Amino acid sequence: MRVNELIKAALAEDLGAGDVTNLYLDLGALLGRAFMVAKAKGVLAGVEIARQVFQAVDEDLKVTIYRKDGDVVAPKDEIMRIEGKASNILMGERVALNFLQRMSGIATLTHAMSQALKGTNTKLLDTRKTTPLLRHLEKYAVRVGGGYNHRFGLFDMVMLKENHIRAAGDITAAVQRIKAHNTTYKVEVEVTNMQELDEAVAAGVDRVMLDNMGLNSIRAAVKKHGDKVELEISGGVTPKNIAKYASTGVHYISSGAITHSYQSLDISLLFEE
Amino acid sequence: MRVNELIKAALAEDLGAGDVTNLYLDLGALLGRAFMVAKAKGVLAGVEIARQVFQAVDEDLKVTIYRKDGDVVAPKDEIMRIEGKASNILMGERVALNFLQRMSGIATLTHAMSQALKGTNTKLLDTRKTTPLLRHLEKYAVRVGGGYNHRFGLFDMVMLKENHIRAAGDITAAVQRIKAHNTTYKVEVEVTNMQELDEAVAAGVDRVMLDNMGLNSIRAAVKKHGDKVELEISGGVTPKNIAKYASTGVHYISSGAITHSYQSLDISLLFEE
Amino acid sequence: MRVNELIKAALAEDLGAGDVTNLYLDLGALLGRAFMVAKAKGVLAGVEIARQVFQAVDEDLKVTIYRKDGDVVAPKDEIMRIEGKASNILMGERVALNFLQRMSGIATLTHAMSQALKGTNTKLLDTRKTTPLLRHLEKYAVRVGGGYNHRFGLFDMVMLKENHIRAAGDITAAVQRIKAHNTTYKVEVEVTNMQELDEAVAAGVDRVMLDNMGLNSIRAAVKKHGDKVELEISGGVTPKNIAKYASTGVHYISSGAITHSYQSLDISLLFEE
Amino acid sequence: MRVNELIKAALAEDLGAGDVTNLYLDLGALLGRAFMVAKAKGVLAGVEIARQVFQAVDEDLKVTIYRKDGDVVAPKDEIMRIEGKASNILMGERVALNFLQRMSGIATLTHAMSQALKGTNTKLLDTRKTTPLLRHLEKYAVRVGGGYNHRFGLFDMVMLKENHIRAAGDITAAVQRIKAHNTTYKVEVEVTNMQELDEAVAAGVDRVMLDNMGLNSIRAAVKKHGDKVELEISGGVTPKNIAKYASTGVHYISSGAITHSYQSLDISLLFEE
Amino acid sequence: MRVNELIKAALAEDLGAGDVTNLYLDLGALLGRAFMVAKAKGVLAGVEIARQVFQAVDEDLKVTIYRKDGDVVAPKDEIMRIEGKASNILMGERVALNFLQRMSGIATLTHAMSQALKGTNTKLLDTRKTTPLLRHLEKYAVRVGGGYNHRFGLFDMVMLKENHIRAAGDITAAVQRIKAHNTTYKVEVEVTNMQELDEAVAAGVDRVMLDNMGLNSIRAAVKKHGDKVELEISGGVTPKNIAKYASTGVHYISSGAITHSYQSLDISLLFEE
Amino acid sequence: MRVNELIKAALAEDLGAGDVTNLYLDLGALLGRAFMVAKAKGVLAGVEIARQVFQAVDEDLKVTIYRKDGDVVAPKDEIMRIEGKASNILMGERVALNFLQRMSGIATLTHAMSQALKGTNTKLLDTRKTTPLLRHLEKYAVRVGGGYNHRFGLFDMVMLKENHIRAAGDITAAVQRIKAHNTTYKVEVEVTNMQELDEAVAAGVDRVMLDNMGLNSIRAAVKKHGDKVELEISGGVTPKNIAKYASTGVHYISSGAITHSYQSLDISLLFEE
Repeated sequence: MRVNELIKAALAEDLGAGDVTNLYLDLGALLGRAFMVAKAKGVLAGVEIARQVFQAVDEDLKVTIYRKDGDVVAPKDEIMRIEGKASNILMGERVALNFLQRMSGIATLTHAMSQALKGTNTKLLDTRKTTPLLRHLEKYAVRVGGGYNHRFGLFDMVMLKENHIRAAGDITAAVQRIKAHNTTYKVEVEVTNMQELDEAVAAGVDRVMLDNMGLNSIRAAVKKHGDKVELEISGGVTPKNIAKYASTGVHYISSGAITHSYQSLDISLLFEE
Repeated sequence: MRVNELIKAALAEDLGAGDVTNLYLDLGALLGRAFMVAKAKGVLAGVEIARQVFQAVDEDLKVTIYRKDGDVVAPKDEIMRIEGKASNILMGERVALNFLQRMSGIATLTHAMSQALKGTNTKLLDTRKTTPLLRHLEKYAVRVGGGYNHRFGLFDMVMLKENHIRAAGDITAAVQRIKAHNTTYKVEVEVTNMQELDEAVAAGVDRVMLDNMGLNSIRAAVKKHGDKVELEISGGVTPKNIAKYASTGVHYISSGAITHSYQSLDISLLFEE
Repeated sequence: MRVNELIKAALAEDLGAGDVTNLYLDLGALLGRAFMVAKAKGVLAGVEIARQVFQAVDEDLKVTIYRKDGDVVAPKDEIMRIEGKASNILMGERVALNFLQRMSGIATLTHAMSQALKGTNTKLLDTRKTTPLLRHLEKYAVRVGGGYNHRFGLFDMVMLKENHIRAAGDITAAVQRIKAHNTTYKVEVEVTNMQELDEAVAAGVDRVMLDNMGLNSIRAAVKKHGDKVELEISGGVTPKNIAKYASTGVHYISSGAITHSYQSLDISLLFEE
Repeated sequence: MRVNELIKAALAEDLGAGDVTNLYLDLGALLGRAFMVAKAKGVLAGVEIARQVFQAVDEDLKVTIYRKDGDVVAPKDEIMRIEGKASNILMGERVALNFLQRMSGIATLTHAMSQALKGTNTKLLDTRKTTPLLRHLEKYAVRVGGGYNHRFGLFDMVMLKENHIRAAGDITAAVQRIKAHNTTYKVEVEVTNMQELDEAVAAGVDRVMLDNMGLNSIRAAVKKHGDKVELEISGGVTPKNIAKYASTGVHYISSGAITHSYQSLDISLLFEE
Repeated sequence: MRVNELIKAALAEDLGAGDVTNLYLDLGALLGRAFMVAKAKGVLAGVEIARQVFQAVDEDLKVTIYRKDGDVVAPKDEIMRIEGKASNILMGERVALNFLQRMSGIATLTHAMSQALKGTNTKLLDTRKTTPLLRHLEKYAVRVGGGYNHRFGLFDMVMLKENHIRAAGDITAAVQRIKAHNTTYKVEVEVTNMQELDEAVAAGVDRVMLDNMGLNSIRAAVKKHGDKVELEISGGVTPKNIAKYASTGVHYISSGAITHSYQSLDISLLFEE
Repeated sequence: MRVNELIKAALAEDLGAGDVTNLYLDLGALLGRAFMVAKAKGVLAGVEIARQVFQAVDEDLKVTIYRKDGDVVAPKDEIMRIEGKASNILMGERVALNFLQRMSGIATLTHAMSQALKGTNTKLLDTRKTTPLLRHLEKYAVRVGGGYNHRFGLFDMVMLKENHIRAAGDITAAVQRIKAHNTTYKVEVEVTNMQELDEAVAAGVDRVMLDNMGLNSIRAAVKKHGDKVELEISGGVTPKNIAKYASTGVHYISSGAITHSYQSLDISLLFEE
């Protein structure tokens, strides 16, 4: 679903058979001027989407942007100004905020975690644990917040999990099957101990996910194979403990929480009196 | 967007041009058996959606449900069993979890807040602060968690906000314009003080939103008009302070946080070895 | 289906694999000027839709509107002028008329009936007996003709019919079940006699549909409960007998015929020679 | 739009965000049995569509058909029986009737007119004056009523109207341009007098529409060219005067009214008590 | 599928979750100028489609057209110039060429065959052997190359094949069944010998397809019935042998190869250095 | 576009407003049995798609498959048998063949070229030069014919062309920009001489496309860098000269012709008499 279709569908969801308040109040062509204002500290993402929402409602709404994606805002900071038919500003308000607040929530949490990686060689990755239909926007918000994107979906990287490996026999067999036909995609394998890691490296994979390994094991893995293969860890990472994990020298830390358990950034639309 | 279309679109987002791991590994008809297992305490919502995801991937996957929506689960509780072609279970896994974990997160937070209202006459309402395109599922999860639904969108209730009122002149004028044409919808008005509340009640509205009024003012409002009109408050409500607000006797407390700032419930898919 | 999608689909239905007359005649850029002209007396509705049809065919067609929705026209009255590529005017002609003639037919019949209510307190309501996919346009045409809209669909009002009531036990039980969960929608109940009406009023419904009750019973119902609840009657109402029904003082008379059995208003497209 | 998509869209229009009566009444799996019953005399069309509507709501609804398309029904005749979950029967009721009543209205009016042609060589044709998006169903209803279909849209026959002819120069020139490229479609031309008819016949068209010609002129046209070309008249034909027009020996009489100004056939859904 | 939807779908197929080269290279607003250049001799078709592809990617790309559909190009001939954001030119390149090269391939082969018919009365027809979803464009390319269109699909002509005839009994019976109801479409019948042709002509069909008949038989068929009915042959026709078939005087020769087995015309996009 | 949607759209394109031959002939429930029969030698691809086409027309058609994808067929070989309602077999015939003949044409040409690579280490790759909307099916047919898939679209591999490189400054700069953000995709670079190849290898790309380099240069490139990076050549490769190119030891040869300039495999549907 392209962004403009997503916006149309979101407006249709809210609008249904029509805005009955405006239908019956019949404000006519009354003009208004409103401001998106931050009510908490955070990192913006989705400013352009919010603009598109208003203009999908009414292409004559004039939107002036004061703060762009990636900017850090504080309470009372004005983000954008919307001018035009008041009933149409009200029609777009909630949908615009629903996108902007969520995306900014993701950028804000991602920013907090990626800041903790400053000075290390570790990159913060996202996952596929995104909201259905919003993956494109959420992975964009992760980049805005200073994170990096892992594979987008099932179609752009080979990822061999425990179940795949057991089905093929062992890591070596699984990787050989992939290598016989795949000419396009990087190959990542999940391992649970050093022996499996050795096997994966020997099989020639591009990246290894160290599953549930402790800090010492991670450190040993990095020391032994960190220059031959990309190493990734995942699970249970928070802004507080991420620096400790990064200290192992691992190349990637992936986090589902940055897209599935963030707080929406508090932002309001205020009309000028 | 109907639920089955939503599921198809979510699968298409993840699948893109195809699951390259399965394409190149070519597991053929290898069968598998997997379990959805809770890894944290919470209230389930979306079990049926998860089932539909698997069966949208492959209608021959057999899904056996152990826990249903509304059930409280604890770590290690098995929620459902999925049996069939292993590659297809893997293809549905992430999307099924992305729905189930989010919906259960909403039900869990809603449950916490609605439990705090036990023994009062106050009902917990949701808002339109839902994820674009998922409103139907999220409002359902609110009901599962013990909350009640406010209007679904712009189309099923008249809601007069400050800006509408100013445009019409005053509350009385705005309500009269609505009453002249509307025969179908309840009318709610936002007020900021007792004088406006008096005016709204006199104008014959069905519900009044008390905006930013303190506990004492709310109490006074309930006392004066609580038997003539429905009263609602909103904003800044948490599981901790909600009982205090309910003690005013207000009829409704609406919360955006239950749909925009919840934690996804931790749930995993585990294959039987 | 939004209006612009409806128009596109209607054009696609007529155009199919292409306009073979224009394809093979190949008029090139030949310009033309045509007029929509009324050929019978009636109330216009859909003028704007007709304009959109022509511009969906070719955004360079220039449409000048002479009569607007709600205007009463007589034979030979010019409604709009269309100028531009002749082949494109011809391509939009039939679809534009198919919308405009039907909507004007509805407005004309509604107008006849609502005029008969002048000086009474009774309002004419439409029903859900509308043409599939055109409900939005037809309910709009009803408003243009001076009627009021009943609920749009199943989603914006609670309507308890005989079968619902029997299933719940009685009117009181059915209304209580609704009241336990519904916070948003008005509740209407169908009754067939005064005893059921008493029960419905006691249960606290918002509106009662008096089903198949004679004029005297309606009059009695209005007298007893007309100040406590909205009263509606339906069925068999015509421009000739509607005034008699209104004389009972009932609040609403709903009519299916205004959307399912009207005569299309006769309108033609004439090219200037 | 295929019929099953049309049905889905019609149900979506009525259902919107959900059937709130059923949602809050929560009848659960309560079963019911209902009958579609004619309340007026007419010709049925759309019985199968009505069945599909119910089964699109719930494929487990059991529909037993008593009267099929083309059958003449009288008041109290049972058309079909629907058994299954009562809430789902209610959810499909209105949409099923909206299709069935309209299509039967068309079949009934068409039948009345085509009966009047019995014993003549004249066929009754429909036009493109159909309801947007329902042309397929309406042209089917015309056939059920004993009428014949004119071209479906702009794509399956060449129709040269006055404006096309003027643009090409004259009838001869217009037909030659068509004949130079068209190898697939029949060609019809509109004429207003005998001289134009002579020219059209000489140019080799397949059919001629005699526009606004009196009975005597039509008779003369049939006499002179009726064995060389198909002749069609249109406009102002009613069940009362159609026999008189047919007496001219003209091959086709086309009527817009059979699809744009019919009365819906009165049909109700009654639940068994 | 309308052309603009086709173009959007083709771009979506190529673009998937996004152009990762441009995403990560981040060329920003870098401008470029590129030329579509022919690399082989042929007849152009699809120039306008190619333009629309670029402008569907970015409506600010400026496209200047040098050669139009139907023009014969030689290697190094410039077809069009595209100016604007370089990353967007690259995003449209492949899809634009995929349309233009295929359509020009069809026009080139059709041109070769239709040139061989010069001076004869025989017309070259296409078939329904077109690429799924591209029939509209391919039949257009046939016209550009000098060919004529046979029926577009199953909906615009009656075509009685052997199996239809056997089912109805014989040719006469089959044609009578069609004539009893069809008022709109030409009727074509497939025959395999002179006796069947005699029967088809007597039954009053519009066109006959002579199936697998030798040159002498075709010549005899033309001599006997060529002035009473359209005659068509099909199958195994090539640019080399088509003139021989045309020498029989047959009215139509239809060819599947012009749409199913052409060579794409070699065309490249070159950036100006 | 998923395969089932593609099939539905292809059927809709052919069927339009309906199959008029069947509508007017009205064969009713007449049963038939037909066979897909090869009329030329080739490699099958799309057998399953053809089956799905027939069952999308009528799920009661029984399809029995005799030859599967990848099988080599000769004239008169029966590929599948279709049994059921004759009118529905005829309705699916053309669309089923349009898919099957094209896909088999691709598999046949690919097979010819990939056979020529037997005994070498070179793999035959496809390109993005596929038919709009059919890429998924065409890339599948390439695999069936023994070829390998290059990237699917713009979204699953980074491909730096001359223009990208010039924009970034040089190869090293371009690759560094990509490496700074990309964690998921392989990187390929186009080079035109050994110096650029050296630079690309030093920059750490995964694959290099040798553009327009002669056989000797390719051989030298393989010798110098063939063990450090994947090497690919493209353009002007035919079944005749491919072995010569492979003799250089290059890893990949990509061919646009296998998807843009193949001959459809001749296959017919024959009804059993």
